[in-house]
Amino acid sequence: MFILLTNDDGIHAPGLVALAEEMAALGRVVVVAPDRERSATGHSLTLHSPLRAEQIRADWFAIDGTPTDCVNLGIHGLFRERPALVVSGINRGANMGDDITYSGTVAAAMEATLMGVPAIAVSLALVQEHPQDYRPAARITARLARRVLQSGMPTDTFFNVNVPSAEDDQIHGVRLTRQGKRIYGDLVIENTDPRGRKYYWIGAGDLDFHDVEGTDFHAVHRGFVSLTPLHLDLTNYRSFDELSRWDIFSSPGSGRD
Amino acid sequence: MFILLTNDDGIHAPGLVALAEEMAALGRVVVVAPDRERSATGHSLTLHSPLRAEQIRADWFAIDGTPTDCVNLGIHGLFRERPALVVSGINRGANMGDDITYSGTVAAAMEATLMGVPAIAVSLALVQEHPQDYRPAARITARLARRVLQSGMPTDTFFNVNVPSAEDDQIHGVRLTRQGKRIYGDLVIENTDPRGRKYYWIGAGDLDFHDVEGTDFHAVHRGFVSLTPLHLDLTNYRSFDELSRWDIFSSPGSGRD
Amino acid sequence: MFILLTNDDGIHAPGLVALAEEMAALGRVVVVAPDRERSATGHSLTLHSPLRAEQIRADWFAIDGTPTDCVNLGIHGLFRERPALVVSGINRGANMGDDITYSGTVAAAMEATLMGVPAIAVSLALVQEHPQDYRPAARITARLARRVLQSGMPTDTFFNVNVPSAEDDQIHGVRLTRQGKRIYGDLVIENTDPRGRKYYWIGAGDLDFHDVEGTDFHAVHRGFVSLTPLHLDLTNYRSFDELSRWDIFSSPGSGRD
Amino acid sequence: MFILLTNDDGIHAPGLVALAEEMAALGRVVVVAPDRERSATGHSLTLHSPLRAEQIRADWFAIDGTPTDCVNLGIHGLFRERPALVVSGINRGANMGDDITYSGTVAAAMEATLMGVPAIAVSLALVQEHPQDYRPAARITARLARRVLQSGMPTDTFFNVNVPSAEDDQIHGVRLTRQGKRIYGDLVIENTDPRGRKYYWIGAGDLDFHDVEGTDFHAVHRGFVSLTPLHLDLTNYRSFDELSRWDIFSSPGSGRD
Repeated sequence: MFILLTNDDGIHAPGLVALAEEMAALGRVVVVAPDRERSATGHSLTLHSPLRAEQIRADWFAIDGTPTDCVNLGIHGLFRERPALVVSGINRGANMGDDITYSGTVAAAMEATLMGVPAIAVSLALVQEHPQDYRPAARITARLARRVLQSGMPTDTFFNVNVPSAEDDQIHGVRLTRQGKRIYGDLVIENTDPRGRKYYWIGAGDLDFHDVEGTDFHAVHRGFVSLTPLHLDLTNYRSFDELSRWDIFSSPGSGRD
Repeated sequence: MFILLTNDDGIHAPGLVALAEEMAALGRVVVVAPDRERSATGHSLTLHSPLRAEQIRADWFAIDGTPTDCVNLGIHGLFRERPALVVSGINRGANMGDDITYSGTVAAAMEATLMGVPAIAVSLALVQEHPQDYRPAARITARLARRVLQSGMPTDTFFNVNVPSAEDDQIHGVRLTRQGKRIYGDLVIENTDPRGRKYYWIGAGDLDFHDVEGTDFHAVHRGFVSLTPLHLDLTNYRSFDELSRWDIFSSPGSGRD
Repeated sequence: MFILLTNDDGIHAPGLVALAEEMAALGRVVVVAPDRERSATGHSLTLHSPLRAEQIRADWFAIDGTPTDCVNLGIHGLFRERPALVVSGINRGANMGDDITYSGTVAAAMEATLMGVPAIAVSLALVQEHPQDYRPAARITARLARRVLQSGMPTDTFFNVNVPSAEDDQIHGVRLTRQGKRIYGDLVIENTDPRGRKYYWIGAGDLDFHDVEGTDFHAVHRGFVSLTPLHLDLTNYRSFDELSRWDIFSSPGSGRD
Repeated sequence: MFILLTNDDGIHAPGLVALAEEMAALGRVVVVAPDRERSATGHSLTLHSPLRAEQIRADWFAIDGTPTDCVNLGIHGLFRERPALVVSGINRGANMGDDITYSGTVAAAMEATLMGVPAIAVSLALVQEHPQDYRPAARITARLARRVLQSGMPTDTFFNVNVPSAEDDQIHGVRLTRQGKRIYGDLVIENTDPRGRKYYWIGAGDLDFHDVEGTDFHAVHRGFVSLTPLHLDLTNYRSFDELSRWDIFSSPGSGRD
């Protein structure tokens, strides 16, 4: 039995190191993580070129690929046995609301789920004033992981966990949440490089969110850990009633189950 | 008013060219697409380096980024006006079931949805015996696009459309479907490069799918176009009952809406 | 018999197209060139990942690699026969003086020389007022190429040719030159990206050159084509006298030939 | 006063670490090196995108660029003062003969020379039976560096040093050498990826060399350190007599100085 860890901040990131230390209490921990930062890579898989795995110390492997690649290799390529659990993180910064679709941290847990391995993605919601101490989040993750190893996961589900940046005793508990919604601002900066060529840089616009009870944003901003159960079915079943009345379909909408 | 087209097979791909030709009947068409193939990039955004836009002819812009980058620039950076609709494709090969989480084509439509612009992702389900004629799929897309421009989209929803590779009169109609489920095989090939260093190549394992009525797979394999309405809420609401009984939560699971 | 063309501005660059048209008079022309711009790549070889060759039309192959890779594949991998001559260019902008050590255009000719194939690197020295007409330079290159095919090259030598941007009748002739010397200015720009992270951009400092008779710079700035015969021996033989007097050597400096 | 170190094997490579330890006896040592392996990159400069410098500990900076970029930043961008000397290495494997034109290690020393800073490139010629102990080579480099700091370099010259892999007392001394000549074998391997697409991999053909007295190859293979003084003038002056008789020149070849 082993637990596979990965992240998208790169194999040397302190969030991963803290996680590995804490998870060691649960069993053998193997790290397969990107050799450098790979955030915002989404569920991106390297198909057209090969990957390298460099063992940097016992049970730590650096990959020149995405978090998704790391999980794929960690389940299929590198070891004889499959991991009992995949934990991805602890990400530097929250992954809540629609942002999760961009997140390499979350994508790694997605990949494990597609391969039939239970998975947890964990992120630390940074607040600038706080120093970045990943240990409280690591301890919470270890508790959740222990529970998942005991009970298993609900079918086709993985956990997206966001932890407020605070001391243990200032975290008010864990809430079962749903994915919230972002409000994205305008984002692109236009500029000219030293050779006079124009470029565009996708920027950090004003990001806001709908502060609705029951969501990940709402919980974390009130000092709770949010645990959002995710699945990979993006079908918007609620739209079926409306759409089935459109005159474009050859037969009554039967997609509903 | 303009319609923004993109894809993940690159700006010179025949599926995009066929789409642009057909869409021109609906209004001004602007293409902002990757300068080369970018498939399996997921919802990947280039944050840490700038992007270039090279105008290769009137209203065609090649970007050294992902499909997601292209839509972001096409909505925020390149033009004064926002597009009325984003269409991504026509992808070389189907994007059905869980595969859509990897798809750059689908991610482009996701990005538009996050920016509040209606979006359609379109893919051609290839069958090897058929030559790749993208025109029937392009005609179907133009019809759908016209309908969306008239009626708008259901809230927070975008369409994932898969078209069987066949002549117009052999396509039996459009079905409203849900996202099906893949069965993934083992995938990683291990080998040694010409300098004796080991590498891993994520492979094309035996791919299969659950052939369940109502899904995209089921429709397309019976000669129908599948239209799956997707949203960006990955929350698995069905798991709430089960999870709310876990003893890890500080308060009764209140994520449910 | 075939002539291999490559460049570092990418396979769609007008300088390459003009060259191919003019060279067709000499025999079969095969183009193996980078799929996108690869300037300032030096003599850079892709060893740790594989390369793709996409045939974009008869005898034109786009490679996802450097100019050096293209020549390597064009001599060893893609064809049964070896080329009789490699011509690299026509580069957008001059490659004179020490700049040639950075140049992908020149590196391609280097690679051919190492593989025992005669080679010419050609660049167009742009002057901003002139439109970029590559045809005069292409005609001059074809004449030189014809001469090389007849006479062969001096041993271990290749030609670095720079053509002033002018009409045929304003080019005063070809001069046999030596490599001049650049004066490099300060070059690095420091800035902050949209996320507040610092970056450095290697810039276009004030570039100047020593305007010495007999050099490439001198000839081109007076309206002549410069032809500099280069080799791959970087040994500074002139320093041997001085160095042999240093007390660090175990025996009298015998490197001299 | 500080000494700038870089390499092309990446900032964590043991050859660089050994070098830094030994050089510390000469003065303040600052390391600016690629964040990962960048061998065979030639004299390649990153012009079209920005670079990041991550300080990984006091006076150690990891750059997401080539060795040439590192030297450029180390001289112009990162520090107020210019280095008194640049040392590049210790490379894992020899850089002798024509191979130096590909070498990132040698290119770093080239870049320093162009910027007017004395430079030494150092490589360890590996023999498979020997363990890779970089300390003897580091000690020799420190001695040479001390000498260069005292006497300066011959004008426009830098040193390319290759050290046999042996214990101190088995290294017979330092020889002043010239650059030897390689014999390159056929090199490209053709294969098919897991998706059936053809690829080419530039391989490690049979490499041989001309074992001529006075060359770097000859010295190193007899247990001597080779010191080859290099410059950036690639002009083949010996070819001028022959070429000046060609009928292509508009005036008597006057390139000779």
